[in-house]
Amino acid sequence: PSPPSARWSPSARVPHLHKPLCGEMGKARKQKGREVYEWRPAAQAPSPAAAAALTSSTTAEDVAAGAEGGSSGRQRGGGAPAGSDGEAQRRSEHKGMTDTQDYYAHIGIHEEMLKDAVRTTTYREVFSLNEFLFKDKVVMDVGCGTGILSLFAAKQGARKVYAVECSDIADVAREIVEANGFGEVIRIIKGKLEEIEVEEKVDVIVSEWMGCCLYFESMLDTVLVARDRFLKPDGLVLPDKATLVMVGIEDKQYKAEKIDFWDQVYGFDFSSVKRMALAEPLVDVVDSEQCVTKNCLVRQLSIEKMSQSETTFTAPFKLEATRNDYVHAFVAYFDVAFTHCHKPMGFSTGPRFKPTHWKQTVFYLEDVITICAGEAITGTFSCCPNEKVPRDLD
Amino acid sequence: PSPPSARWSPSARVPHLHKPLCGEMGKARKQKGREVYEWRPAAQAPSPAAAAALTSSTTAEDVAAGAEGGSSGRQRGGGAPAGSDGEAQRRSEHKGMTDTQDYYAHIGIHEEMLKDAVRTTTYREVFSLNEFLFKDKVVMDVGCGTGILSLFAAKQGARKVYAVECSDIADVAREIVEANGFGEVIRIIKGKLEEIEVEEKVDVIVSEWMGCCLYFESMLDTVLVARDRFLKPDGLVLPDKATLVMVGIEDKQYKAEKIDFWDQVYGFDFSSVKRMALAEPLVDVVDSEQCVTKNCLVRQLSIEKMSQSETTFTAPFKLEATRNDYVHAFVAYFDVAFTHCHKPMGFSTGPRFKPTHWKQTVFYLEDVITICAGEAITGTFSCCPNEKVPRDLD
Repeated sequence: PSPPSARWSPSARVPHLHKPLCGEMGKARKQKGREVYEWRPAAQAPSPAAAAALTSSTTAEDVAAGAEGGSSGRQRGGGAPAGSDGEAQRRSEHKGMTDTQDYYAHIGIHEEMLKDAVRTTTYREVFSLNEFLFKDKVVMDVGCGTGILSLFAAKQGARKVYAVECSDIADVAREIVEANGFGEVIRIIKGKLEEIEVEEKVDVIVSEWMGCCLYFESMLDTVLVARDRFLKPDGLVLPDKATLVMVGIEDKQYKAEKIDFWDQVYGFDFSSVKRMALAEPLVDVVDSEQCVTKNCLVRQLSIEKMSQSETTFTAPFKLEATRNDYVHAFVAYFDVAFTHCHKPMGFSTGPRFKPTHWKQTVFYLEDVITICAGEAITGTFSCCPNEKVPRDLD
Repeated sequence: PSPPSARWSPSARVPHLHKPLCGEMGKARKQKGREVYEWRPAAQAPSPAAAAALTSSTTAEDVAAGAEGGSSGRQRGGGAPAGSDGEAQRRSEHKGMTDTQDYYAHIGIHEEMLKDAVRTTTYREVFSLNEFLFKDKVVMDVGCGTGILSLFAAKQGARKVYAVECSDIADVAREIVEANGFGEVIRIIKGKLEEIEVEEKVDVIVSEWMGCCLYFESMLDTVLVARDRFLKPDGLVLPDKATLVMVGIEDKQYKAEKIDFWDQVYGFDFSSVKRMALAEPLVDVVDSEQCVTKNCLVRQLSIEKMSQSETTFTAPFKLEATRNDYVHAFVAYFDVAFTHCHKPMGFSTGPRFKPTHWKQTVFYLEDVITICAGEAITGTFSCCPNEKVPRDLD
């Protein structure tokens, strides 16, 4: 029975298009093909003020999504790398054995993240096109992993890079740093951010802390600790902006495969499993074509200014239908931005963009909502780190 | 950075065929399409005696593969279900939150296993076509999961089914059993096999205990404990036979993607990661076309007779080349058989058959071996539960 641990899975292009391609899709596909990621606010997103002033609605929904911090989950491994850009890849998993198991989960994770071209090339471009942010600066890399961001920073002339990592991958990062001749510039510090010490304040904090649905299993709290403990008063955090966005999707076929599957399994009633499946969000790639509403900005974070308490919130949302269709699920995703660049840069993990290893987070509705173009669905989105998800639908 | 836990990944058809289809492949594809699995000894496998008498060789290799028992890994989740038979599926992962997390990993695992049609329909056919094995019998289901095998047994008229499961999925199984009206027949026992008690000996033990590479994270030890503690002297174990098989493959392209990738990552030398990646087996689907040697039976197990100590072994193997090609890796897989059926049944997880969620286990070689049709590679395969993998190549 014991299936292997899926440490990573393949390119995240959505293979099932259950509708023919049309004009709107053409645009979406073009967007997906972009290789250079310039940041712009989420398309069609209302301002936070507008989102807060909800009025028209056809259906009232309350969706409460929980997210958790903590590090245990961070070692569980594998999502899907988007690095190969639609090229079919063999599904694979590395099997770690006893002593190396701990390492190994990490190798899979880091392979996946490095092969996520949206993620890694955006960071690379941010660094290489903005040398002024790094030249002769003191940098801290929070959760450095294999050390790729530290290497980017060192290559742009950073005077010193403190690369902090609490997992065993730190030992690998140290070898990599030495192998690339940056042992003098980059100091790998294996330990928890809350417990380590460095001898100077830093000019720049770089980090790739984002988790699914932005907050889920994310390192945001750690980045804020680093900011408060080690950043100079006028220091920068890269990226400095993040937004959480929602959209409604038509998803009949896949909901049937993932949720309704449990109604009848080899002739038996497995509906007690269905209730559990419905209560949990699904991390998955959604095709842009499935979006039947405008995007709605739910939450905007300024990493340099926000407080720890802001990671728990309840925010209203309003999803305005763009066509007559059914809504089977709400999808949450995030965008991040580097606004200190010469020209603002960033990337989106939304369904209208090239898939990343974060994919999107799908919250299925128990019932299907019928919606007409121009109508809107309103509700609230709650994010409570480390708590159980109550998912109430009115 | 935190990628989601990949609880399962999609249909395991190999999308990359880096050679044109040819005659031999036609045969393999036909085999893959089979939906009814009748058992036959691994194709072209020499007898264990023949395998032990190794003589001719072009290259001597020593491959030591470790496997581990234990239950911790069994909850780590997801491989790839083969249930959808080549139909493209969206990659997805369910995200569990705190309290339900434990459950949730299980849901993903059980969804994957149930959707593995090779696995589940073979069991279903074994039960439904062999009512004489179950009618009025007392059955024990070792590691019952959601209880599907217990339901199959009850449906065939079992007088009593003791369904043992130590994880929290036992609670779900109990609900499922009740929902299907088998509460009187099936008793879900939540606990460890070593610690539970039942009031009678059983006629039949059913279990789906197999792990990757047969032994990896498998429940075989638990099945043997159940056999010794609870099975009547003339009782049956289903399945009762299992074989571990090896084959050599050409895998240049994928080895480059998975192993050589680390030579140079965004312009930096990551070769210290490469050494780790090379040392660990990869669980993956291999296309039949990639096989460049005959299969070699490495180990044959008779579950009803074997001792616990037989799960640790070192066995010789001899891989005879079927064409002039390169060997980049050795692949291990297993077959299982139910020989007590009216007509022996079973399934293979080999590359020449329809992929299952077990996929195959790939051991990459540091160097490539050049081999000519008729030549053979010999070596030894070591399986040591709960020990680190020494992987020595001469």
